[in-house]
Amino acid sequence: MKRFAIVGHLATTSAAFSLNDLPGSGGRMDVLCRCVNSSFFLSHDLRRDAECYLILCGEPGPEKTVLFRGSEVRYLSPDERSSAALIKKALAIPCGDEFRESTPGVYIRRGGLSRLLAEFPFAVLDEGGEDIRTAGELPENYLLSDHHNLTAEEESLVGGYRSYSVGPRSLHADHTITVLLNEMDRREA
Amino acid sequence: MKRFAIVGHLATTSAAFSLNDLPGSGGRMDVLCRCVNSSFFLSHDLRRDAECYLILCGEPGPEKTVLFRGSEVRYLSPDERSSAALIKKALAIPCGDEFRESTPGVYIRRGGLSRLLAEFPFAVLDEGGEDIRTAGELPENYLLSDHHNLTAEEESLVGGYRSYSVGPRSLHADHTITVLLNEMDRREA
Repeated sequence: MKRFAIVGHLATTSAAFSLNDLPGSGGRMDVLCRCVNSSFFLSHDLRRDAECYLILCGEPGPEKTVLFRGSEVRYLSPDERSSAALIKKALAIPCGDEFRESTPGVYIRRGGLSRLLAEFPFAVLDEGGEDIRTAGELPENYLLSDHHNLTAEEESLVGGYRSYSVGPRSLHADHTITVLLNEMDRREA
Repeated sequence: MKRFAIVGHLATTSAAFSLNDLPGSGGRMDVLCRCVNSSFFLSHDLRRDAECYLILCGEPGPEKTVLFRGSEVRYLSPDERSSAALIKKALAIPCGDEFRESTPGVYIRRGGLSRLLAEFPFAVLDEGGEDIRTAGELPENYLLSDHHNLTAEEESLVGGYRSYSVGPRSLHADHTITVLLNEMDRREA
């Protein structure tokens, strides 16, 4: 299983955001929607061996985590508004301590990064990391940040984790996932 | 200069499409919007050495071409709705035979693929092409198709053009651009 976790520092935890204004009312929810797209979509197919964890750290709080499972997800189209609508539906249901399914293959629970890191080992995707092309065996699980860098507190949580870079330029999180999956596809081919 | 041209087989040539329904009313305009994003966005920067040509072949016709110039473009954010709004503004102005600027760095003219191919040499991005990682010097200009394959007529226009592949799996056009630009970034680094 490949897992991508993306920290949405401003991403709203309320279903009240507007699908017509994902960057503003959603707290840059558009960034997370594009990461869902990158994690799953192939031409006329979905990556069934992937999961995408969206860590929503914005207002009104407390933190929530939305999980998309490629093996189960339905009603997901590639456009940002499609994944945003599924996130909005997840935010609209009562949110408990365990993952609860809102629509097929989409789940939500309370809690954020520290809880997720306690469950799976993650590598960090970061400009300063080891080049994925020349690295040995690649890990399965990767943590990315949205348009903001990880906070000092988040950095301390992932201190000592392996870090990987996808190339010489600093890319958006969704582009980073795309380049990484291409490397994984090549190794699996 | 790097140039990406994307054929939008169903993409509307009318400004009447809804920003709330890019896939339906826009004729999969969302695909083209994601290609604009991939062509230009770096983390906190834009690729100023890129141009993106969107070839709109849908209703009501005739074909139009929208050009985004990275060196000049303004008011462009990464979300799909942002580039769609600029495309909509371009479609709203009178469209002549020569490129006319609608907003800074965004232009529109009549005509489609055959005219563009007469102006620049393009390579084709295609699953069956030469692997970009092992290819010799890479060309500057690339043609991609949206969610539909090139038509027989379009194939005949590009017959004999060099073709390149970005890896073992068939990807969406925007993901293909991202992977290709990563290879170009590495060669330039």
